[in-house]
Amino acid sequence: MTMRVAIVGAGASGLACIKCCLEEGLEPTCFERSDDLGGLWRFTEHVEEGRASLYKSVVSNSCKEMSCYSDFPFPEDYPNYIPNSQFLEYLKMYANQFNLLKRIQFKTKVCSVTKRPDFTFSGQWEVVTLHEGKQESAVFDAVMVCTGFLTIPYLPLDSFPGINSFRGQYFHSRQYKHPDIFKDKRVLVIGMGNSGTDIAVEASHLAKKVSFLMLLNGAKCIPLSNKCLTHPTRATGHICSLLSPIGGRAGQIVQQQISSLFMFLFRIQLREPVLNDELPGRIITGKVGIRPSIKEVKENSVMFNNTPKEEPIDIIVLATGYTFAFPFLDESVVKVEDGQASLYKYIFPAHLQKPTLAVIGLIKPLGSILPTVETQARWAVRVLKGVIKLPPPSVMIKEVNARKENKPSGFGLCYCKALQSDYITYIDELLTDINAKPNLFSMLLTDPLLALTIFFGPCSPYQFRLTGPGKWEGARNAIMTQWDRAFKVTKTRIVQESSSLFESLLKLFGFLALLMAIFLIFL
Amino acid sequence: MTMRVAIVGAGASGLACIKCCLEEGLEPTCFERSDDLGGLWRFTEHVEEGRASLYKSVVSNSCKEMSCYSDFPFPEDYPNYIPNSQFLEYLKMYANQFNLLKRIQFKTKVCSVTKRPDFTFSGQWEVVTLHEGKQESAVFDAVMVCTGFLTIPYLPLDSFPGINSFRGQYFHSRQYKHPDIFKDKRVLVIGMGNSGTDIAVEASHLAKKVSFLMLLNGAKCIPLSNKCLTHPTRATGHICSLLSPIGGRAGQIVQQQISSLFMFLFRIQLREPVLNDELPGRIITGKVGIRPSIKEVKENSVMFNNTPKEEPIDIIVLATGYTFAFPFLDESVVKVEDGQASLYKYIFPAHLQKPTLAVIGLIKPLGSILPTVETQARWAVRVLKGVIKLPPPSVMIKEVNARKENKPSGFGLCYCKALQSDYITYIDELLTDINAKPNLFSMLLTDPLLALTIFFGPCSPYQFRLTGPGKWEGARNAIMTQWDRAFKVTKTRIVQESSSLFESLLKLFGFLALLMAIFLIFL
Repeated sequence: MTMRVAIVGAGASGLACIKCCLEEGLEPTCFERSDDLGGLWRFTEHVEEGRASLYKSVVSNSCKEMSCYSDFPFPEDYPNYIPNSQFLEYLKMYANQFNLLKRIQFKTKVCSVTKRPDFTFSGQWEVVTLHEGKQESAVFDAVMVCTGFLTIPYLPLDSFPGINSFRGQYFHSRQYKHPDIFKDKRVLVIGMGNSGTDIAVEASHLAKKVSFLMLLNGAKCIPLSNKCLTHPTRATGHICSLLSPIGGRAGQIVQQQISSLFMFLFRIQLREPVLNDELPGRIITGKVGIRPSIKEVKENSVMFNNTPKEEPIDIIVLATGYTFAFPFLDESVVKVEDGQASLYKYIFPAHLQKPTLAVIGLIKPLGSILPTVETQARWAVRVLKGVIKLPPPSVMIKEVNARKENKPSGFGLCYCKALQSDYITYIDELLTDINAKPNLFSMLLTDPLLALTIFFGPCSPYQFRLTGPGKWEGARNAIMTQWDRAFKVTKTRIVQESSSLFESLLKLFGFLALLMAIFLIFL
Repeated sequence: MTMRVAIVGAGASGLACIKCCLEEGLEPTCFERSDDLGGLWRFTEHVEEGRASLYKSVVSNSCKEMSCYSDFPFPEDYPNYIPNSQFLEYLKMYANQFNLLKRIQFKTKVCSVTKRPDFTFSGQWEVVTLHEGKQESAVFDAVMVCTGFLTIPYLPLDSFPGINSFRGQYFHSRQYKHPDIFKDKRVLVIGMGNSGTDIAVEASHLAKKVSFLMLLNGAKCIPLSNKCLTHPTRATGHICSLLSPIGGRAGQIVQQQISSLFMFLFRIQLREPVLNDELPGRIITGKVGIRPSIKEVKENSVMFNNTPKEEPIDIIVLATGYTFAFPFLDESVVKVEDGQASLYKYIFPAHLQKPTLAVIGLIKPLGSILPTVETQARWAVRVLKGVIKLPPPSVMIKEVNARKENKPSGFGLCYCKALQSDYITYIDELLTDINAKPNLFSMLLTDPLLALTIFFGPCSPYQFRLTGPGKWEGARNAIMTQWDRAFKVTKTRIVQESSSLFESLLKLFGFLALLMAIFLIFL
């Protein structure tokens, strides 16, 4: 009998799950609470309960060649960093292309997902849903939870003494839609993630004054335009793993030095940077002022540490990130504690007797989220089918606990340290299990050009479709033309290049003359 | 008898002229057409005839330590790049500090400046002014023209075939004030100067679509935040002049290669870059599309060369720069032809029998305009007084003609090639004449630290006040603390640095280990 799978949520993860189920011969039913697909990528003017909320100007923070589904490149004429409306369009194209729409039940809220009495044998779940006031119940062989982690705002008000007496407006960044509200106001933005930075910069165009409170120990702000090149490649991943087994405090410092030099040399990012073109310029033109930590919030002003005067403030925006929860699941299934869930490989509850419930997309890789969740879905579906066997619960619990020890401090969108530098490692682990990991050694003999492109080039998602189940015939071509597509949209005019032999020779001579000149000048 | 000087315009140049006249014992009277000082730096919501017009978001494009009057640093708490409202504030502080206000007659338009019948002997001018409907005439011993070059828009409509049939809105960038007008429109911005870039970027936040037509052969766009370091230093100026005497086509190519490598190595800018933090990001997110040249403007659309489809356009902004004129002067005094005036050292009409009329601020140096015009004023006042003698007209005319041969092609804010790389050379020429050029050789013996700071550091304006007439006692200190002031505004919190000896040693070890690792990996 065909396995029936309930999928909760029709965002980027949910769509990938539907497609994977169909490809593997499973029978998916996707329940979507709102009236359309797209999840967080669907902008609405008003915040909707239970759904992530975008501000109008959100742009994908990963280059289009790195952040697509692995067998469905973005259209050629899309920009390299994709505005939310076009991202949604892309998701709709994906749903159409693979016939996913008819599997989605819209306006259907999942009220509860509970183990059936015979769960220990059957692994089945009872899913209760609510559609237009009518409750229904159905039994499924498996459940895939794709509700994301950007829905429930994290508001650590205790960290800001006095905020309850503040008479101005204060709200979580989730409430933010347009910068108009900041017109002629004195604004304080708290939080140094991408949202906080975007909001501070956008506010600075209209506000009287913007103060920006960096959390954690600051952040590296890089321009969007530099990002494409900084994506992890297999080559840099290899270097990192060669250097990682150095322990102790001394080892840590040595490693820090090595890391920072390698980061410089090979443009590796070991920590999620903030992507913003404007922030540095807004700071040096005085439009955004960086502030130290808060001492006290008063009625109409804020006192900062290390500054003598209090600063009048009208609006406080708390870009303090999100937490997550599964209100439809019992704590005995998945327990969320300190912003962590006990999920083996970030997917399967480690202690369940039967691996028939998977959480997809509860991960913040230092790479693109879309190919990550898609690979999770491919792997999870094969686990659900029983093709891949999970290790015994004791081993899984051990893995989960090891990760918990690496829990980062601070708050906001914290990047789980265990995953910080291993986007490729993580995906490769999953791909190995489903026999879809490209074998570079044998490829070096059969297709050396492709092998070198994969090793030294960006780790684009098409690599995950070269081989194994779910293999895509277009993958090789997509890899070999990825830079063409990335550059195409920026090439809108013909640039004449001078290239006569005479001039080339002169250029060479010029270069030699330069070396001579440097030699003579600095002698 | 005290020499009476008429100064036309109370902008940044006019203020410098009043101050120089007072310092040199001359009797200045400044006529300002509008009701306040500040010239182009005074933003108004509506365009005023005869005065430069800013858009709301204009920020100075030169770092505050490089663009102040040489004896009047910006306040410490000013940002590094100064918004127009603060720049105006600064000019007002300057006027107050040096008691310039009472020398200005506001709301007074200069109608004509004509030679007196006895000009050949007296060098005197008759100045006719209009104040609240009342015309007055007065005789002056000298005239300083400070009307700038950003008042008369240059609109080369012939370059855009069909623009007269365009039914949308089109206007010169001078008319632009706020981005609101672009809301949900399809906008075409023509012109690749700073204004064009700013407008395209600002429009892209609100418009449905922004197309941006680059003029000339493209431009180098650098972030504002990188600019401080790219300012010319005396050291790089020296290298340039060492390399310049290579002639011919071959020499030109060699020189190009050398220049570009030196530009890279020493961050020299040989061409005025466009300063914008946002443009690259707006292009790769598809918010701004770069377009090739225009083939034809139609009623509601534009056809571009090398693109098959016409593009619907609602608004065309022509950021095509400015031209200048002296409506109150007869052509026999200063003739403007092809955007050039025959001015010796960009100041004195080369053919006049008496050097009693100076044009201040008609120059676009590859450095800051404020210290340039101030130095011009200091030099010109000493010429007016007769302390400095100009060469005979034949020599001056030769200099002017040589410059004309270097006239750049294209339109817009063209940077006269003759001045492109010689901000320092030009100012030094003027300073030499007024004995205010610092002598680095003798300084190396008396104050080596200062000498090295001046040679290798940025050529900040305080250097022009170390010696000679107009010497400022605070100059040395201002030079030695210039970086402190530049950094101060960005340091708003205390950053802890780890610096134990143990850790330093470990860092050293780490670096050695890195070298070893590189050696081993790439062996």
